[in-house]
Order: sequence, then C-alpha cells, then structure tokens
Amino acid sequence: MASTVKPSPFAPKSLPDMPVIDGVRFGTAEAGVRYQNRTDLMLAVLEPGTVAAGVTTSSKTCSAPVLWCREQLKHGRARALIVNSGNANAFTGKKGTEAVRITLEGGAKALGCKAEEIYVASTGVIGEPMEGSRIADALPALAKAVKADAWEAAARAIMTTDTYPKLATATVEIAGVPVHIGAFSKGAGMIAPDMATTLSFVFTDAAIAQPVLQRLVSAITSRTFNCITVDSDTSTSDTLLVFATGTAAKRKAPAIQDMADPNCGIFACALEGVIQDLALQVVKDGEGLTKHVTVDVWGAENDRAAHRIAMSIANSPILKTAIAGEDPNWGRVVMAVGKSGEAADRDKLAIWFGPHLVAVDGERAAGYVEKTVAGYMKNAEISIKVDVGISGGHARVWTCDMTHDYVTINADYRS
Amino acid sequence: MASTVKPSPFAPKSLPDMPVIDGVRFGTAEAGVRYQNRTDLMLAVLEPGTVAAGVTTSSKTCSAPVLWCREQLKHGRARALIVNSGNANAFTGKKGTEAVRITLEGGAKALGCKAEEIYVASTGVIGEPMEGSRIADALPALAKAVKADAWEAAARAIMTTDTYPKLATATVEIAGVPVHIGAFSKGAGMIAPDMATTLSFVFTDAAIAQPVLQRLVSAITSRTFNCITVDSDTSTSDTLLVFATGTAAKRKAPAIQDMADPNCGIFACALEGVIQDLALQVVKDGEGLTKHVTVDVWGAENDRAAHRIAMSIANSPILKTAIAGEDPNWGRVVMAVGKSGEAADRDKLAIWFGPHLVAVDGERAAGYVEKTVAGYMKNAEISIKVDVGISGGHARVWTCDMTHDYVTINADYRS
Repeated sequence: MASTVKPSPFAPKSLPDMPVIDGVRFGTAEAGVRYQNRTDLMLAVLEPGTVAAGVTTSSKTCSAPVLWCREQLKHGRARALIVNSGNANAFTGKKGTEAVRITLEGGAKALGCKAEEIYVASTGVIGEPMEGSRIADALPALAKAVKADAWEAAARAIMTTDTYPKLATATVEIAGVPVHIGAFSKGAGMIAPDMATTLSFVFTDAAIAQPVLQRLVSAITSRTFNCITVDSDTSTSDTLLVFATGTAAKRKAPAIQDMADPNCGIFACALEGVIQDLALQVVKDGEGLTKHVTVDVWGAENDRAAHRIAMSIANSPILKTAIAGEDPNWGRVVMAVGKSGEAADRDKLAIWFGPHLVAVDGERAAGYVEKTVAGYMKNAEISIKVDVGISGGHARVWTCDMTHDYVTINADYRS
Repeated sequence: MASTVKPSPFAPKSLPDMPVIDGVRFGTAEAGVRYQNRTDLMLAVLEPGTVAAGVTTSSKTCSAPVLWCREQLKHGRARALIVNSGNANAFTGKKGTEAVRITLEGGAKALGCKAEEIYVASTGVIGEPMEGSRIADALPALAKAVKADAWEAAARAIMTTDTYPKLATATVEIAGVPVHIGAFSKGAGMIAPDMATTLSFVFTDAAIAQPVLQRLVSAITSRTFNCITVDSDTSTSDTLLVFATGTAAKRKAPAIQDMADPNCGIFACALEGVIQDLALQVVKDGEGLTKHVTVDVWGAENDRAAHRIAMSIANSPILKTAIAGEDPNWGRVVMAVGKSGEAADRDKLAIWFGPHLVAVDGERAAGYVEKTVAGYMKNAEISIKVDVGISGGHARVWTCDMTHDYVTINADYRS
C-alpha cells in the first residue's frame, strides 16, 4: 500500500552519514512474513557485554513481543535484536507467544546466545497469526551476513507505511574519546495497529551502567516520543530500545556509572538529540500530512497540565483539519484548551499563530488582521503558542495536520 | 456554507407531528446577526410560573450566554428563551457580556418580565464580537408575533451546519391526563466552536417541581447527550434546557413534587425518550457521515470505565476512517480498548461487528470469515460490541464514521 502514497513533503533530501559502532552489526532478509519483494526482517547482532534499556507502549492490549521485551529489560543484558515488519504479532493469543518462542529459539541457535538476551519487535497487521518459522528459518544465513555499515538497509526493512527511512546520529567526546550514537525508527504516527506502530532502536558504543541508561531513556522518552501525536491513537506495539555495547571503553572512554557523573550529562544531551531527531522524523511522516505543527503551552498549573492542554490542541480533529485548510481558526484552539479539563483563565488566555498575536485577554487581539495570519498558515511549518494564564507550567508537543489523504490511507489500508 | 454540504443519509423522511403546548409560543426573525436571507433569531415566550432546568458545557472556556444561563438555573424561573445562530458570542470578553446584557434588556422590555427570567443561547462563529442590538431591535415585533405551532420554524432558525431540523415529541398520561413534551436541537456533532455547538430545548406542560426536573435532566443527559460523539471535540456553548410550564395542572394533572412519586418515573421515561431521540438525530447529522455507529462495551470494571472504553473506541480517528472505508478492521478496536487506560483482560477480550463474532479469548475467532464481515460493514447502521472480560460495567455510546467530507467541511468552513 505504501506505493500509492505520496512521499511526505518533509522527507529529508539525504540520509545522515552513519558511524560504524564497534560491536554492532546489521543484516536484513526477505523472510516473506507478509510482504513480497521487499525486506521484512532485520537482525542486529551485539557484542557480549551490551546492555539494553527501553520503554514500551502503555497499551493495555500490548503485543507478545512487547511483553517479552519488558521482561528482559529487567536484567538488561543484550546480544541481539530481531525485528520483522508485515505482521505485528499482536492480539494473536497463545499463537503469538509461540511465534515469539520460535523466533527466539532460532535466534539463540544461530547466534550461540541465550534467548533471554534477544529482544524482538514486530509491526504490521494485527490479529493475524504469524508464522515464527519464517523468521527462524531465515536467521542462520542472516547471522553470517551481518555488517557494521548496513544502517539504511536495516531502517528500510522495518518500515510499513513510512514514506522514508528514518536515521539519526551523533558523536560526542567523553574525556576526549569520541563516543558514537546511531539510531533508526519506523512510524508514520502514534497511530495504532495495522500500520503505524512506532519502533525505535538506538545503538551506542558508550560504556554506561544499565540502570543509568534506563533512567536516561525513560526521561528522554517523556520529552520526545511522548510529545508527538498524529491522531491520538496508541499502538499495541510501540517500542524504543537503546543498546550500549561499552566498546568505547577499549578506546579509554570512562564508564558512566551514575547520574551525577558530568559525563552522564554530556552523553544524555547527545542521546536526547538523536531520539528527538527520530521523534520529529516520525511526526513529519504522519499519514497524509501537509503541515508540521509545533504546539507550545505555558502559564498552566504545572508541566503535566500544560502537556495535557498541548495534547488536547494537537489531537483536535476539527483544528487539525482547519490547519490542513490553511485557516487560522484560533477559535478551535480556544475550544481545545477548554475541553482539556485543565485550569485555564478564559479572560487571560493569549494565542499566537507563529509571530502573530491573534487573541489576548479573552478576546480577539486588537491588531489581528485575518489576511496576514491566513498568509502565515500557508507555511509548511506552523507554530501555535498558548498562554493559559494560571501559573508556570510549560509543555511542547509536535503534530501534523489532518488531510483527505489521512482518510484515504486509513479507509483503504486493508482493502 | 450549509448549502454546499450533502444532506445526511439519515435525515428523517418527515418531521414529527408536534403538539401545541399550553403556555409556550415561538417566533423567528431575520435579525442579520451574520447570515443573510435566512432566519437567525428564535424567541420562545413562556407562561408565568414556568420552571427551567438544564445542563451546560463542561468547557473551561465557555461562552457568555452559558455563564448567564448557569446563574439563572440556580433559581430556575423562566419567562422566555432567546437563541441566535451565526455568532456564538464566545471568547468575546467584556463585549460578549455586554451583548448578552443588551439582548436581555431588549427581551425584558418587549415581554414585560425580568431579565433574570430570560435564558439565552448563541451558536456560530466564535471570537467575533456580536452586536446585541441586532437581536434587541428585532424583539418587540417578534414578541407580538409568537405562535404555539411554529415548531419547525423555531428549529430551523437555530441551525448552523445541520443538514436537517431536529424535532422530537412524546405524550404521556399522568393520572389519566395527557401531558405533552415537544423539543428541538441543533448540532452536527459535539464538535466545537464555529459550527457545531449542540443546543437543545425541551418544552412541556407538565407540573413538576424545579429541583425534581433538574435531577431528571442531569441524569438523562449523562445517558444521552453525553453518550454521543462525532469527533471528540467539545463546544464552548453546549446547552440543554428543559422548560415546564405546569399548565397541565389546569387540566387536573397532579404536580410531581419528588423523585419517589410514581408519576415522576412515567414522566421521566417519556422525557428521556424525547432527549435520546434528539441526541441520536444530532449524531446522525455528524459532519460528512455515511455510517451511524453504536458501540456497546460490557465486562468493564464499572460503568464509568465502560463509558471511557466506549468513548475511546468511538473517538478513534483510525477506526472511524476504517468504518468509512467499510473495512472490518477489528484490530483497531483492540487498539482503542488498549489506549483507554481502563482495565481490560487482553486474553478474554471478545469483539462483535453486528451479529459476527470477530475475536474471542484474545485472538481472532475461529469462525471469522473476512468476506462475511466486510459484507456487514456495507450497512448504514453499524454495531460494535466489546466484552473486556473484567467485571460487570456496561456502557453504550453513539457515533459516526469519519470521511473525506468531514475534512472538507472543517478545512473549508471559514474560507
């Protein structure tokens, strides 16, 4: 189905120059899980000693692979990551658990490691039983063919309705030693089973204790992937995993053992940059989008309230369709603030579209000129800023508009 | 803008036969608030002694008329109702309060009653200052021209993007005396400023104490208007008012003084029937809809949890677009249950589309035949039933699909 969809207007003109990360190698294959004539299986082989940290969907109906990863993140040792596209292996009951078992058994045998050191993720149709053997059968050959520089192939193998592969990287010096981070995501929104699960995998040679890495990843996710929305829907399979091989220690990079270590802050900033880059690439590939929208809310009771108001704005279908129509319909922002349920002072509310103050003190701004603001709405990047006039809470979230193509893509996906 | 929109496929073939309610008369006028060549002002004149009960939007950014009505519902005496379309008088600051004052002053003068006995409601564009004098100037002539049988004209004068007028009625015998209820609504969804505010006005000659009427109206609203959704957006102006003239007492209908009175139950059933009828007419006029969808959830932790799960299903854009595409995409129902945040047992979850069991015990039902269920999805009326397998909580909500026309209507409304 991806072939009938226009590429996102925000597709990057070129892919970033990805680093070789000592201890990480990738392979891809056409396992025929569901798609024909495209890769649908990705294996990452990780150096012994690699630690893993991550976050998974908050869905109460999460998939079998998600349940497995959650369990293994408790110890956080990692030797491999196996990801397939085409079938999410979600809501597949005991058959789903069995497909995970078969995949792990095949992986452990092919790689000579324990099943518990292998992480799995699946994305695609849900409710369709998945044949784990298709994956297991492909693993022995794949394990022999892994390469350190196969980033783009890896990113492409896990795509579903994405219109472009999503890669990000950073290099940071820790005590004078370059430490590398490379990462890729798939996702065309936070938009649920069958298509747009968000999967993100980050690899680094940093030497970092697993509990520290887990704390960083949880905090960074709350500021990045948990601040994007395409249509308010939440996948059963969302997974973000960060793998640290520790191989930079061979080059004398000091190990990061606790949060108070100044090197931890340096590494955390770089890691957040990479993960935010991926999150923005996902929302900029939102299904059918023509606009990328940044929503800032301040003046809320606290940061959590600000986040809820910002999400209420970012998820409002009636506002998102107005943005698609390039209509500076700020009344719908007022509506979305009002429906969030969070405290807002109607008579102190102020709203900006880009640099234009459109409403202030509970009514339309005196200097508002509809034609000027309508001109601003023609931009591809739209900023909406709201001061709700209560206290100091702030939040920023990222979203996109809702277009005819969103309806087309989601009405016609399986037919 | 309404003229470019196709009528809803659920528009009733004929309007109900409306009763004359002793003590209630209606008038309409072209006040030129915003629209040209159509009525945009409705006046209902009510017999002295009439009591009012009602509910208003939970929005934190509600309109000036809503604030006024809330205040008057505390005493609940009523002599008139003035409603305009074209301008919602919302987010208009002090000018909005002033427009309400001018309207009330004009009404009190024309009718010889107190301003506090007049209820007001406005629907249309928000953030645009409204000239109260246009309304006030039209009231003297209007007050002289009111008629008992002008139901359809009244219902039409308050429409915005509605594709049909929404009227409902019932007659119930209380101690052998026929008591009448007549009502009308406007709304094309719970869908926010600029267009689709829901306003509902119910009139009865029942003799009923105001506190009893208020309790009935609050309870009935929670089971009717609070169980419909078009796109999850909430208006700044939603208002439901019920006026009881008490004139049936002249025909020896006994007065209903408390909730335990058996006549209260009889009247309450009829009132709920009328209000539910209106609520369903509103959702069946949902912008751009092609399908009317009933969602039943049971097996939830409690009724409140069931309602939240049902609303999560009814508000999911990715599911609503699939329904528009006649795709029996039950995986998206699983997703919506999961994202609601309420307890659900993934491995006991069961889903029906109409009479067809599509999933059970956490996986696709053994007898599921996609072609059969795809055939069912071609119906105009779709039923989705979900058992979440936790406890005894139940809820029913009503919604519609999300189509290309929804995007068109909302992207192009003001341009």
